[in-house]
Amino acid sequence: MPETHVPSTATSDPLRILITGSAGFVGSHLVERFLNEGHTVIGVDNYISGQVSNTDLFREHPRFTFIEADVSHGIPYTGDKLDWVMHFASPASPPHYQQFPVETLMVGAQGTQNGLELAHAHGAGFFLASTSEVYGDPLVHPQPETYWGNVNPIGVRSCYDEAKRYAEAITMAYHRSRGVNTRIIRIFNTYGPRMRPDDGRVITNFVHQALRGEPLTVYGDGSQTRSFQYIDDLVEGISRLMMVKYHEPVNLGNDEEFTMLQLIEILRDVLQKPLHHDFHLLPSDDPVKRRPCLMRRREVIGEFLAKPLNSGIENMIGDLNN
Amino acid sequence: MPETHVPSTATSDPLRILITGSAGFVGSHLVERFLNEGHTVIGVDNYISGQVSNTDLFREHPRFTFIEADVSHGIPYTGDKLDWVMHFASPASPPHYQQFPVETLMVGAQGTQNGLELAHAHGAGFFLASTSEVYGDPLVHPQPETYWGNVNPIGVRSCYDEAKRYAEAITMAYHRSRGVNTRIIRIFNTYGPRMRPDDGRVITNFVHQALRGEPLTVYGDGSQTRSFQYIDDLVEGISRLMMVKYHEPVNLGNDEEFTMLQLIEILRDVLQKPLHHDFHLLPSDDPVKRRPCLMRRREVIGEFLAKPLNSGIENMIGDLNN
Repeated sequence: MPETHVPSTATSDPLRILITGSAGFVGSHLVERFLNEGHTVIGVDNYISGQVSNTDLFREHPRFTFIEADVSHGIPYTGDKLDWVMHFASPASPPHYQQFPVETLMVGAQGTQNGLELAHAHGAGFFLASTSEVYGDPLVHPQPETYWGNVNPIGVRSCYDEAKRYAEAITMAYHRSRGVNTRIIRIFNTYGPRMRPDDGRVITNFVHQALRGEPLTVYGDGSQTRSFQYIDDLVEGISRLMMVKYHEPVNLGNDEEFTMLQLIEILRDVLQKPLHHDFHLLPSDDPVKRRPCLMRRREVIGEFLAKPLNSGIENMIGDLNN
Repeated sequence: MPETHVPSTATSDPLRILITGSAGFVGSHLVERFLNEGHTVIGVDNYISGQVSNTDLFREHPRFTFIEADVSHGIPYTGDKLDWVMHFASPASPPHYQQFPVETLMVGAQGTQNGLELAHAHGAGFFLASTSEVYGDPLVHPQPETYWGNVNPIGVRSCYDEAKRYAEAITMAYHRSRGVNTRIIRIFNTYGPRMRPDDGRVITNFVHQALRGEPLTVYGDGSQTRSFQYIDDLVEGISRLMMVKYHEPVNLGNDEEFTMLQLIEILRDVLQKPLHHDFHLLPSDDPVKRRPCLMRRREVIGEFLAKPLNSGIENMIGDLNN
């Protein structure tokens, strides 16, 4: 999938990269890609929402080191000079961050700052995983990076949304006042192998219900839409952005939308078996619909051939069946 | 000014109150009021924007203790059980917080959390000084507390605005998940004795220029409006809110607006001397106009008799001439 004519970590000299949240869904895919490309990776996680099995995948790899630590309290790295500090640690799904509100706030503030300080000390780049949730309940569709968002600062989701907005603000402060070479991405809905089964988002729920032979839970009438970015496309965007000096936030996501009923059709085709679904009342905190404006992504890191939803779901299910 | 029929700290049993930012403009007025009412006060400041002269005012008072500390790194208090932790530490005027962006972000995150932890450990109330800046460049006028704001998360002011939004989010998280008895106020433009002469806001600029006999600097055509809350009115609101169990944010400000040219008229009347002014180009980062919706304040803590602007300015000048 990496296109060789576009600069990315695939064509870079070997790098030494520290990744916080390395045992998380996105973090573990970054570890995999960077190791495959010949880079050296230091993974850090405290397993508050990451999974030990994601560390086990790489534990024997000669260029992988793992540090079990809560990065909100410091990043105990004492090794050779780093080229990149990538801050991907945080509970990211609503059930997780609402279970750990204070920890989520801390990893956005102290965790981000500890990463920035480490990057500054090493003269390394700092890469922040922010989120489409900084747009909150958007009043503008689709959302360009210049949209300032509509977030309730005191709502039950604010522990995540405000933590990420703060993380962006402190990243820009270190860039402006201390010269750190920073990147910020706003990640939209992403799926793929190694998502936690209890992630709580529709694609995981559907896949696991289908595999268990249960009826799929459809909220409302199933006509609401979501967009889904396959994990490899996100990782490709990250890898390219590392090679471009661009410090403002960049949206990474997929702007093709599917209704819940279309998603069920696709899942039925992939599994080649009949699927049933039940309609349930739309919960009051149904996730807000967001759709990325991807103009800046195209300008900054070039065109993408996004993986089609059916083949992404195929990969996800193939991984579960292994 | 305290009305005896409205509950406030004026009629409360003696309290032990720790105030961060005690050497700041607002902090020092809180110290003064609480000492006058018979309470015990522990002041904490690191003088990043507070003034030593504000500590000197109370240094000899038998019920006042001062701790010089940066609350972002911890609050080294080991004394008797506290009734209140009041977090008023932060650079608050644009020239100050833009000079100290990282420190401003930290006192909003780590500083607030250290205060919440201290309050939790003592079973004390926690009082957060938030700001009208959480509304950013508002699209709704006047601003009720239910308005979510319009803040640029990566702008040069975001070090203050996002720090305060984060502070509100973590205060609500400690309230919801750890049961801390919290209060949040959003302070609008406030003036009075002991503001820093280099505060940078119009009322301080005008007063000091007038006293030096210089022409007053008017940006634009002077028709833009501001509202000004006298410090004692803010302190009265704080004192009342401490006695009411209300955990959502409350706006504290004055909703009467004056043009810059009206402000000059008032200053001329107070000083009883002719004043001259020069017109200058409106700077690109001219402070955004905000006006508080005060309905919630009235509902939660009752009516106010706000001090008129001319007599507030009189007090401010009287203090400077002492």
